[in-house]
Amino acid sequence: MDLKKEIREIQDYPKEGINFKDITTLINNPEALNFVIDSVVDKFKGKGITKVVGLEARGFICGGAIAGKLDAGFVPVRKKNKLPAEVISETYELEYGTDKVEMHIDAINENDVVLIHDDLLATGGSALAALHLLKQQGVKQIYFSFIIDLEFIDTPKKEEIYKYENQILVKYS
Amino acid sequence: MDLKKEIREIQDYPKEGINFKDITTLINNPEALNFVIDSVVDKFKGKGITKVVGLEARGFICGGAIAGKLDAGFVPVRKKNKLPAEVISETYELEYGTDKVEMHIDAINENDVVLIHDDLLATGGSALAALHLLKQQGVKQIYFSFIIDLEFIDTPKKEEIYKYENQILVKYS
Repeated sequence: MDLKKEIREIQDYPKEGINFKDITTLINNPEALNFVIDSVVDKFKGKGITKVVGLEARGFICGGAIAGKLDAGFVPVRKKNKLPAEVISETYELEYGTDKVEMHIDAINENDVVLIHDDLLATGGSALAALHLLKQQGVKQIYFSFIIDLEFIDTPKKEEIYKYENQILVKYS
Repeated sequence: MDLKKEIREIQDYPKEGINFKDITTLINNPEALNFVIDSVVDKFKGKGITKVVGLEARGFICGGAIAGKLDAGFVPVRKKNKLPAEVISETYELEYGTDKVEMHIDAINENDVVLIHDDLLATGGSALAALHLLKQQGVKQIYFSFIIDLEFIDTPKKEEIYKYENQILVKYS
């Protein structure tokens, strides 16, 4: 299936010069939605994944489905002050300023085998912050899944992520 | 399966006197996660659902999985200024002030059969706003799915929602 045809491109969003990749058209099509979910499940089903980490908010949409089909738990990594129980946190840099992501401290332990899922890999900032949350917990086996990689954005953070076994379904070069 | 045992209660969160219902422990357990997804799918699989609307952010987690298994598209209803293309919006009241939810204008049309899903029904404010978004689009066949209903909160908004065929998996009275 040609997933790229299912992704809407929006010029000058969120600001001039950016050609935004909108996955809402993809997930609106049941065939494309299931193609994404099943592609990730097929790739990782032999790995013994025990937890799927989804990044807020778009990483939740397929992340929950992938977790269910892999018979793994789903763990949300959220923006600051959104999770109700005790958390660990990681600060990461934005273009201007910083942001913070959090995970419940009891959501994952060092023996878990974890798949980190998000819809889009751009600079790698939030995905690397999620990786660091797992490192804080002592997790040793980590995989990555992204629907889209904006390959034309090349950063040291992404090089860190590429060192892990991963799956990317659509690339923009 | 006794789902209530899988839900963590957190006293005095987000403020004193509130006993918060935390579903992150439920979705962390693959058996409970799949029990929720499959319960919703079993209830609605004969209804001809074409779109599942999930409310940001926790409604995305099971919403995407339910959409996939019902062979329906997934439509995110998001907080204001999060969706990239043309939207319709609904303002609703909070305890103090108002909030706004948005949906892509081309995500749903009047012939769709729609299941609105969220994790928790409290005052009904955001779920009713989602219903009004669908009414704006002329949708006629609408169902609701919630994991939890805080039944002890009784509002006119919830009475509107209860008029539609719905499924609630866990009730706190």
